Amino acid sequence: MTITVGVVGGGQLARMMIPAAEALGVTIRVLAEAENSSAQLASTGVGDYRDLDTLLGFANSVDVVTFDHEHVPTDLLTELETQHIQVRPGPHALVFAQDKALMRDRLADTAVPLPDWQVATSANEVDEFVGQHAGEAIAKTPRGGYDGKGVRVIHSAAEVADWLEVGEVLLEEKVPFSRELAQLVARSPSGEVRVFPLVETIQQDGVCAEVIAPAPETTDSLSARTAEIARTIAEQLDVTGVLAVELFQVGDDVVVNELAMRPHNSGHVFTEGAVTSQFEQHLRAVLDWPLGDTSLTYPWSVMVNLFGDAGHERITAALETSDRVCVHAYGKEPRPGRKAGHIVVSGDKLEDVRDIARRAAQAGERA
Amino acid sequence: MTITVGVVGGGQLARMMIPAAEALGVTIRVLAEAENSSAQLASTGVGDYRDLDTLLGFANSVDVVTFDHEHVPTDLLTELETQHIQVRPGPHALVFAQDKALMRDRLADTAVPLPDWQVATSANEVDEFVGQHAGEAIAKTPRGGYDGKGVRVIHSAAEVADWLEVGEVLLEEKVPFSRELAQLVARSPSGEVRVFPLVETIQQDGVCAEVIAPAPETTDSLSARTAEIARTIAEQLDVTGVLAVELFQVGDDVVVNELAMRPHNSGHVFTEGAVTSQFEQHLRAVLDWPLGDTSLTYPWSVMVNLFGDAGHERITAALETSDRVCVHAYGKEPRPGRKAGHIVVSGDKLEDVRDIARRAAQAGERA
Repeated sequence: MTITVGVVGGGQLARMMIPAAEALGVTIRVLAEAENSSAQLASTGVGDYRDLDTLLGFANSVDVVTFDHEHVPTDLLTELETQHIQVRPGPHALVFAQDKALMRDRLADTAVPLPDWQVATSANEVDEFVGQHAGEAIAKTPRGGYDGKGVRVIHSAAEVADWLEVGEVLLEEKVPFSRELAQLVARSPSGEVRVFPLVETIQQDGVCAEVIAPAPETTDSLSARTAEIARTIAEQLDVTGVLAVELFQVGDDVVVNELAMRPHNSGHVFTEGAVTSQFEQHLRAVLDWPLGDTSLTYPWSVMVNLFGDAGHERITAALETSDRVCVHAYGKEPRPGRKAGHIVVSGDKLEDVRDIARRAAQAGERA
Repeated sequence: MTITVGVVGGGQLARMMIPAAEALGVTIRVLAEAENSSAQLASTGVGDYRDLDTLLGFANSVDVVTFDHEHVPTDLLTELETQHIQVRPGPHALVFAQDKALMRDRLADTAVPLPDWQVATSANEVDEFVGQHAGEAIAKTPRGGYDGKGVRVIHSAAEVADWLEVGEVLLEEKVPFSRELAQLVARSPSGEVRVFPLVETIQQDGVCAEVIAPAPETTDSLSARTAEIARTIAEQLDVTGVLAVELFQVGDDVVVNELAMRPHNSGHVFTEGAVTSQFEQHLRAVLDWPLGDTSLTYPWSVMVNLFGDAGHERITAALETSDRVCVHAYGKEPRPGRKAGHIVVSGDKLEDVRDIARRAAQAGERA
């Protein structure tokens, strides 16, 4: 009688879907990569999501399949759909989050603003593109990159010779952006769409480090523009669940950087900072249930990632710094640079909120 | 390396500790009464909490023991403490939530305001007390009552003859109260105390049906008074974790009705309505971690219980009524009158918020 959502991947995103599932009265099952995953509380299986039999066995035990990450091979997901398993987002949409070259190509058919881009298969093509862009370009592997991996700033084809040996390289102009933004939206299979407030994201070494909600000093026309972009992508690509659109601001406008079709680091701030968290919204969307209000609950909320370690010492040290600190530990073994948890602080004044959040994140940090 | 909290009892309170434990990075284990408990996701054992070996086996697998209910026999908890197991609240405090006659006797030693009360062992004593109180009294079984069970309005000893046969009866004056209030407080073993905002509770047939935060039309002196009462009880009885003090308002003052030493139905409203939920605060307190801010996040929040059933049809019907509805389903089989879930709605205007919450609770209700 109970409805079961199956999540492929046992990372922190799956972990943070657990409270949302409990609140909704929905059973959650997780196919994790390993024992002791972040989502181990809901982990009902450990196995290789690249193995069709493993994936099918898991998918057949749940009512709808969704994801903690984008790494499940598209052809396996298509096979699930052939077998009448509900996959949300479906592979026809998810492929554009899995493959950045396909994404650029697909978005070029929409009115969505993009940087200059090109898929190169030879050193000549790379050097030509670099030459057309003041001697500099961003090169990306179309598949498999995340958190700055699979991305290089290049000045000649020699710098991507290794990538060209094994496949295509996506080239993009280096956009002269003033800041980075993220626009989250949720869409249900029956077509309901809810847009979250626009947030600013601050990266360190290609990894999201801090998020501010709402994005400061944002004009109404800019936030209307980013909302429209996210809605357009969600609708035209038939995305279901949460879609995160990473954006570069250039002057008064934006261009689309990357897409994620799942809850996203930039949306963690909404767990405390909005009426409906991105995790609950994602589950409601993939279940085709009514979506929730995305209004902010505070004038300002700031999220700061905890890298490396979020063990008890660091968490209690963070809580010691201020009673307004909200913590989320991911239950991971410490490892340098790893996203191990995050902190959210909310309040009336951005500067105060950010100071409290940063101080909490620094407390107990290992040298 | 991970810290583990053990919760005796697998009801909705244990269930709602799970998200708090996940956020804090603490492992949670539950000793449930049965399979398919509300807290089954964290249930690592099913057994009888009245059996010492079962309880010891569970307690020895965790770092600190706390509770979903008050029903564990005091002598068993004392035995755990003898074996150097951390029990929070400890049996020396919990006994006053377990036994209402002991509670009255203990609180009589404090400055806390109480109704007239007496423990009776004979029909004569009952009739005498009733005669002294305009022919009417409240009779309670000292142990085992909850949600209106074990409580009777009586006019003569004949109405509690069955209870007198098996033990003492607690008699209390029928207080001419204008409304019921609840004052929650959390206290850690090292003595930190945090008081939650005062809430109004609305009962139906002796069961909490609705909670308003903050309690409307409350003077500063009244809320200071209730805060002081709760703090006094927590400190003088050496309570650890959340303490809920149920109060009757009489004129401009209050008297203490009942105590609970755990998260409480009246505090569910704080999950959305306050910076720190009662569940997280309880865990932080029993772990002796720093306590969180209890400030309200909205001008008004209203909680309405869902009785009988909180299955998918009812939950989606509730969500359909307004995008501001936050639901909590407890994963229980439907049963008439059972607390099956609750709804919280928050906002700027009390009337609107209450209307939305009530309408959502009525939606999909079984006839």
